[in-house]
Amino acid sequence: MNKSWKELAADKKGRQKESIPKEWILSNLPSEEESNIINFPEHCGLLTPHEVEITNTHIEVLLQKLASAEWSSVAVTTAFGKRAIVAHQLTNCLTEIFIERALIRAAEVDDYLKKTGKPVGILHGLPISLKDQVNIEGIESTIGYASWVGKYADRNAVLTDVLEALGAVLYVKTNVPQTLMWGETYNLVFGRTTNPNNRSLTSGGSSGGEGALIALKGAPIGVGSDIGGSVRIPSSCCGTYGFRPSSGRVPYAGSANSLEGQDSLPSVLGPLANSIYGLKVFIQGVLSQKSWLRDPLVIRKSWSDDEYNLIEHGRGKEELCFAIMWNDGITLPHPPIIRGLETVKKALLAAGHKVIEWKPLDHKTIIEIAEFVYTSGATKEFEVLSAESGEPRITSMVPGVEISAHNEVITTTNDHMSAYDLWQVHKKKLELRQAYLEHWLATANETGTGRPVDAIIAPVAPFTAVPHGKFLTAAYTIVWNVLDYPALVIPVSRVDQALDVKKPAHEFLSDLDKSVYELYEPEIFKNAPIAFQVVGRTQEDEAVLAMAEIVDEALRT
Amino acid sequence: MNKSWKELAADKKGRQKESIPKEWILSNLPSEEESNIINFPEHCGLLTPHEVEITNTHIEVLLQKLASAEWSSVAVTTAFGKRAIVAHQLTNCLTEIFIERALIRAAEVDDYLKKTGKPVGILHGLPISLKDQVNIEGIESTIGYASWVGKYADRNAVLTDVLEALGAVLYVKTNVPQTLMWGETYNLVFGRTTNPNNRSLTSGGSSGGEGALIALKGAPIGVGSDIGGSVRIPSSCCGTYGFRPSSGRVPYAGSANSLEGQDSLPSVLGPLANSIYGLKVFIQGVLSQKSWLRDPLVIRKSWSDDEYNLIEHGRGKEELCFAIMWNDGITLPHPPIIRGLETVKKALLAAGHKVIEWKPLDHKTIIEIAEFVYTSGATKEFEVLSAESGEPRITSMVPGVEISAHNEVITTTNDHMSAYDLWQVHKKKLELRQAYLEHWLATANETGTGRPVDAIIAPVAPFTAVPHGKFLTAAYTIVWNVLDYPALVIPVSRVDQALDVKKPAHEFLSDLDKSVYELYEPEIFKNAPIAFQVVGRTQEDEAVLAMAEIVDEALRT
Repeated sequence: MNKSWKELAADKKGRQKESIPKEWILSNLPSEEESNIINFPEHCGLLTPHEVEITNTHIEVLLQKLASAEWSSVAVTTAFGKRAIVAHQLTNCLTEIFIERALIRAAEVDDYLKKTGKPVGILHGLPISLKDQVNIEGIESTIGYASWVGKYADRNAVLTDVLEALGAVLYVKTNVPQTLMWGETYNLVFGRTTNPNNRSLTSGGSSGGEGALIALKGAPIGVGSDIGGSVRIPSSCCGTYGFRPSSGRVPYAGSANSLEGQDSLPSVLGPLANSIYGLKVFIQGVLSQKSWLRDPLVIRKSWSDDEYNLIEHGRGKEELCFAIMWNDGITLPHPPIIRGLETVKKALLAAGHKVIEWKPLDHKTIIEIAEFVYTSGATKEFEVLSAESGEPRITSMVPGVEISAHNEVITTTNDHMSAYDLWQVHKKKLELRQAYLEHWLATANETGTGRPVDAIIAPVAPFTAVPHGKFLTAAYTIVWNVLDYPALVIPVSRVDQALDVKKPAHEFLSDLDKSVYELYEPEIFKNAPIAFQVVGRTQEDEAVLAMAEIVDEALRT
Repeated sequence: MNKSWKELAADKKGRQKESIPKEWILSNLPSEEESNIINFPEHCGLLTPHEVEITNTHIEVLLQKLASAEWSSVAVTTAFGKRAIVAHQLTNCLTEIFIERALIRAAEVDDYLKKTGKPVGILHGLPISLKDQVNIEGIESTIGYASWVGKYADRNAVLTDVLEALGAVLYVKTNVPQTLMWGETYNLVFGRTTNPNNRSLTSGGSSGGEGALIALKGAPIGVGSDIGGSVRIPSSCCGTYGFRPSSGRVPYAGSANSLEGQDSLPSVLGPLANSIYGLKVFIQGVLSQKSWLRDPLVIRKSWSDDEYNLIEHGRGKEELCFAIMWNDGITLPHPPIIRGLETVKKALLAAGHKVIEWKPLDHKTIIEIAEFVYTSGATKEFEVLSAESGEPRITSMVPGVEISAHNEVITTTNDHMSAYDLWQVHKKKLELRQAYLEHWLATANETGTGRPVDAIIAPVAPFTAVPHGKFLTAAYTIVWNVLDYPALVIPVSRVDQALDVKKPAHEFLSDLDKSVYELYEPEIFKNAPIAFQVVGRTQEDEAVLAMAEIVDEALRT
């Protein structure tokens, strides 16, 4: 007979444990009460000083040392492998662990360089972590579904092939929430991923395993996916950089997913890293590989130096005009988020740029459209998918009550939506995309640069990382998915209990706004990273990377 | 009270008649029995010899003469205006006629050139006809729906703005079938458009007005739309060139449409003309206008000279390898279509190219997917749309029985399809697109060029233009819409009763194949143009134009 979901999950969890190199299992882990463990890996004793140096090295330098054979891929993969395993023991961020296989590959890459004198590609020898969805031949892609335990990929995802062609070494996959449709990371197979800055807070989701891993420097670059903020929310929660490219730039073909066939709001793959350089080198590399020859949904367009050089933005030599969105008209952000935006504003003005205010255009309707689309077939999908193992649907991310006591079937009013009704939603979506584009163009009257606003600066959420189960809204990220705007997350500060005091209640914009307001207490959010998004227009991926570099530079100087 | 659909249609038809310049109404029209009227316009006496010369001039020369002010736009617009009105009186190809407005615009364009010494753009002064869908401010876009009579566009479609920015002069709009979802052209407002080569045959559809108009040289370039062959079928039926670009290259925003919100298989706008040069100059012009700044669905990619120069196809200097698809596995083409393909094969071999056979990959399932998508919300849409006027749904294109006697509501099994079911169709579609791409790549083993097949040569339909009501299948065009492959139609010959004799019955592939076989009798298809498609991979628009030029050149030498 079929195994129950509990048996399947226990089996998988057991095999995961066995996949960890024995000598890398720590006995000196901090107690669960120790909330900020971000610096533990460097001092845990598992990594040699040289391995600490490797994993702390800026990725630009790291790639140079790998390409010049100063550091071998075996040494670098070992260092990041160790640090990833430590990260996992601290935050439960990994799903698949295949260090041995990775070291064989690393040795091959080293060998190639030695023999030919040439690096394999621009990611030569670099370990890269993948969200559980990205298929690697011979490795499971459960994406946290008990029903999918034992589902070994029979071929690589296109992105896997692309990254290996660029010289990357794959060694771990990372945790996700059930259905991938949560801003936190918990599932019934692998459990919960916590935030390394404060383990009582969420790592975000759905690429929460990546967020925790990258923040702990267990990988120099990680690949997440983003359908409504799933790269950006963990980046923001954990304090890393992260990029949601436009649809059709990074190949998705051959990756596992939920909501398959839901084409209205496609998920996209994108990188997380500890610098914009890490995001950029990933995108440049991927865009050099002509993935349209392997994935029918990839746009036939290589990396554009012209766009990276901001040809349509005054060539980046003149001042840029940024527009800050202080709130989305649905919820008001918590004090640390506002302080983050003020910090960016000050830095941009000091660097000689213009800053105006971004007026959000009907984000409420845009979010309603997204919710309509996401839920239109989700319940039916989960029923089909869970039938085999009897796995229950997670109804909350609050610890202890993740599965409803009654194990009720979740239904939404959209569950039996017809295709015709979905067409009407699409029609509305297109109207709003058209209106938003015109809204953006119309800012040319306000900027003083002769151009419309160059990029928007916006919150990633109305809050930083929140206590588990309290990620109340993804509206600040979803809006750019609906519009298909590229958005890049930059960390700017951390919650400071002295600076970020709770404000008196304002006139609430909505019930949600009230709930968001009530959630904030400075001591709960201790040490949580503060971040923001840099947002461009559809397919301005190269320009967003360039403008984000300008913003980041302004912040660091 | 609301007017009935018959009143609305009569009102519109009356106003259409009034919009024709009185002095251009002919009293010497050929009798209805005269089937081939393709040469009538030149001899009808309305056009002066110079106007005949203008309208017969190759578009490359025509544009040069316009740009150099040798010929004024007023003269050229008058010439094409006259010829269009003659074409309309012969085939009923027009919907909107606004010659006076066009001549004012032409005079402005002439004036601009005189004052500045510079043409407005690469389409300076050129009259261009638009399928009824493409909105022009202040002009109706009924697309043949009685319910939409009196629906004046309150702004230009993006393409209208783009064409005017390039210097074009708009003067007529062209006929379509009700719902736009037929391979013929008949609606209850404007009636039927016939084929100028043989008026007992269809002009094709849904851009059948354009097909007839361009074939009669009533416009040098026309804009059609194509969701399942609607540019290519009329091009083939009428003997013009026509191009269905990939989705997202030519802006669609602001055009009227049926099945709005049906995003699974988007309609695309594309040109018809009497030479590939006409198609190319249109695409080059449109792609120079950065339409992504005005239409959120346009890909941020300008015209690529590299791709036009066939960089990925041996730079076009070496031999190319074409694959001929002799049939799609669903129906066998009529003898003239096979003769057309044999003619192309011979010409390509003589020009030094390679020719292999294209093996269609499960076109049957691909077509089923398209039918599922098209019909999933179509009935409901028509109910909503016709509610106001009570207009009945056309159930046949056979003259005299277009509307079912019982005026029954058409329903299909897909009418109440859920969004979840549509997701499953999308999933299957993506699998097939992936498989087709890999199928194409795998031909690298057969071509001998080191590359996969450069382009496919395929029938446009298993038949030429057919008697009204007999366009039995659009499977040969729909397949490339599902795959989103650019496809360009080239005319190659005409039905010859001596050469294209009926063959003995073969073992039928399907009931449809039997019906297609039985349809053919050489004398019925007298003088019908024979054409074929040149098909490339997604977004190889520039390369398809270049390869089509090579094929066309091989055929003409």
